Amino acid sequence: MSVIVQKYGGTSVATTTHIENVARRVIATKQAGHAVIVVVSAMGKETDRLDGLAREVGVNEETFREVDVLMTTGEQVSVALLAMTLINMGHKARSYTGGQVRMLTDSAHTRARLLDIETDRLRSDLKDGVIAVVAGYQGVDTEHNITTLGRGGSDTTAVALACAIGAEECQIYTDVDGVYTADPRVCEDARCLERLTFEEMLELASQGSRVLHTRSVELASKYQMPLRVSSSFRDVPGTLISKEDESMEQAIISGIAFTRDEAKLTVTGVKDVPGIAYRILGPVSDGNIEVDMIVQNTSADQTTDFTFTVQRDDYDRVMDILQKVVDDIEAGEVQGDAKIAKISLVGVGMRSHAGVASKMFKVLSDESINIQMISTSEIKISVVVDEKYLELAVRALHSAFELNEEGA
Amino acid sequence: MSVIVQKYGGTSVATTTHIENVARRVIATKQAGHAVIVVVSAMGKETDRLDGLAREVGVNEETFREVDVLMTTGEQVSVALLAMTLINMGHKARSYTGGQVRMLTDSAHTRARLLDIETDRLRSDLKDGVIAVVAGYQGVDTEHNITTLGRGGSDTTAVALACAIGAEECQIYTDVDGVYTADPRVCEDARCLERLTFEEMLELASQGSRVLHTRSVELASKYQMPLRVSSSFRDVPGTLISKEDESMEQAIISGIAFTRDEAKLTVTGVKDVPGIAYRILGPVSDGNIEVDMIVQNTSADQTTDFTFTVQRDDYDRVMDILQKVVDDIEAGEVQGDAKIAKISLVGVGMRSHAGVASKMFKVLSDESINIQMISTSEIKISVVVDEKYLELAVRALHSAFELNEEGA
Repeated sequence: MSVIVQKYGGTSVATTTHIENVARRVIATKQAGHAVIVVVSAMGKETDRLDGLAREVGVNEETFREVDVLMTTGEQVSVALLAMTLINMGHKARSYTGGQVRMLTDSAHTRARLLDIETDRLRSDLKDGVIAVVAGYQGVDTEHNITTLGRGGSDTTAVALACAIGAEECQIYTDVDGVYTADPRVCEDARCLERLTFEEMLELASQGSRVLHTRSVELASKYQMPLRVSSSFRDVPGTLISKEDESMEQAIISGIAFTRDEAKLTVTGVKDVPGIAYRILGPVSDGNIEVDMIVQNTSADQTTDFTFTVQRDDYDRVMDILQKVVDDIEAGEVQGDAKIAKISLVGVGMRSHAGVASKMFKVLSDESINIQMISTSEIKISVVVDEKYLELAVRALHSAFELNEEGA
Repeated sequence: MSVIVQKYGGTSVATTTHIENVARRVIATKQAGHAVIVVVSAMGKETDRLDGLAREVGVNEETFREVDVLMTTGEQVSVALLAMTLINMGHKARSYTGGQVRMLTDSAHTRARLLDIETDRLRSDLKDGVIAVVAGYQGVDTEHNITTLGRGGSDTTAVALACAIGAEECQIYTDVDGVYTADPRVCEDARCLERLTFEEMLELASQGSRVLHTRSVELASKYQMPLRVSSSFRDVPGTLISKEDESMEQAIISGIAFTRDEAKLTVTGVKDVPGIAYRILGPVSDGNIEVDMIVQNTSADQTTDFTFTVQRDDYDRVMDILQKVVDDIEAGEVQGDAKIAKISLVGVGMRSHAGVASKMFKVLSDESINIQMISTSEIKISVVVDEKYLELAVRALHSAFELNEEGA
């Protein structure tokens, strides 16, 4: 039995007409000879409506258990309506809440982690030709309390189900055609990629190409579950994300990712002694602030400059924290810039091709764009530049690396 | 431990502000020394919104399982918001869906019957000072499928929980002050009753005073669970419905009920032979049409007239059915009247007081109102009159039986 797991997001099930469209796609997949499990999110703005009700009443650590009870109704409405639509189109279908499947999680309400999935009932459905419609994003703990995987968790539900049941492919349907070489809103000639490796997708997703929830890509990568991102509105093949195919000539660069909403902070005149990085970042981390890039150069004169980036929203809070730190560690001063952007080149081909970095720096230099920070990993090079150069830099790099051309 | 079960209907939890009001009442009951279980319905028009979505997709026997999955989200939203509100007001609270409690039902989706209620977890909550907030109207079958008790089933949930846990009283809060001697919209000097017996409430409820779901009154009566109907908006004692109190002088008449939406059909010239009533009503019942009053007088000349009433909506269908029946049984003809009203006097005191019927008939006669049908039970007398006399008849009877006066 070839099983396909399909996941449809909120915009794909926004109205009962949208749901009919989804039902037709599901039925086409079944008629092509596959057993189908469908995972759906809450309808369009339903999650926001429920979120609004929760905020009216007051969300805090004490009420997290109840927030989960509230939010999970969104997906429950969607699974019921999709199952009804499939039945009325003449197919056998049955809906499942997270608790009914049972998607067992820990008890960390609003951000639970999946522990185990029971597949007996789903398998028996699939054998009987029943389309199983599963509510995304939700689970239960061992005490039958309702839990959620956090926003965007429906992708994780779909991938986890696909892995647990040994599906052939997990398909994520959304409102874009797939994963692009760069954001088409910035780069007009951006191209939809046919294939990507899990590693590339992870770098692109965490760098701002928010098509897929990062956790779901990690999970797919761990179990080597092929993931396809495609459009629920158009008939396109989408982007297949899978393990690296040795036989295939890899593109050097797969895509360009960027984020605009970061800020940079530098502590100058830091004594180059063991433990100093912790004394700077410890207080930041204690404030529940996420740090992205960290750069520290070798010191020439016993002191160095320590720079890192954070979400722009956290800029003022981090500035306050660092002012105290500077006194404690007897450093120089704190410099900051909230108007920066980060641009990353991603591609597994980079590993075996020298010169990607130097080509990138030359392209930016030719456009007179100053590079403020550099950070690299095996399949990624990231630079920080003044925010005003973002579009110019992305377009110049996209063109120089010929990403608009097939097989670049 | 003295346990009080309270049930709040849709209008009482229409907005988060309404829910705060409910929370204050619940907390007041707890602070008066009771352990509290609260049962809530879906917010205001939520049930209608969900019903609308279901109809867009298509409701039929095949989709009933999914309709239940859809509809139960309404109460799930309410329990989450009420529990959050109670917690934010500084009290321990925990919400439960029907499946979490577990309210075990049969598998008759959209109209399931309760089989068993597990009370261990609720008892443990109450012992710990936790307010248990339970979703009304819903349950699960043995296969964990979500079921519903049918519309108005939240009353049944509350009473069943009260019986299962051995509560002191089950309180039903709604948008009226209690049960009245007659509908205040028709009878200006109608009075809110302090006490009623289960039998009286059953007769009043099924006759059109739709304050309480009939099933819930039957259940309360079976387990002798005191029921209080009161307002969630005003501070009033409401109406206590309990078993008959021997020590108390019973009022002869407790109240007047009426329905406007009935129709009357008569088959004339029916041969007075065994089985004839079945041959008339069998086809009607096969058409899933509910019959209310049935009257057949003794025959003088081997033939008789057979009359019954149905919901006005069913009038045309019943007329069609009877036309065929008349030929089959060689009766005379079918006469009908869709503009009738039924008025009932209800009271346990009637049993020991002769003359109620004759007084009723005299009052109507004095107003020149012709009585078309009469039917009686131990604690009720019902008459059918032309619909146009409804208000006049109710007011005249209310006044003649002095129902506006305390202890009438």
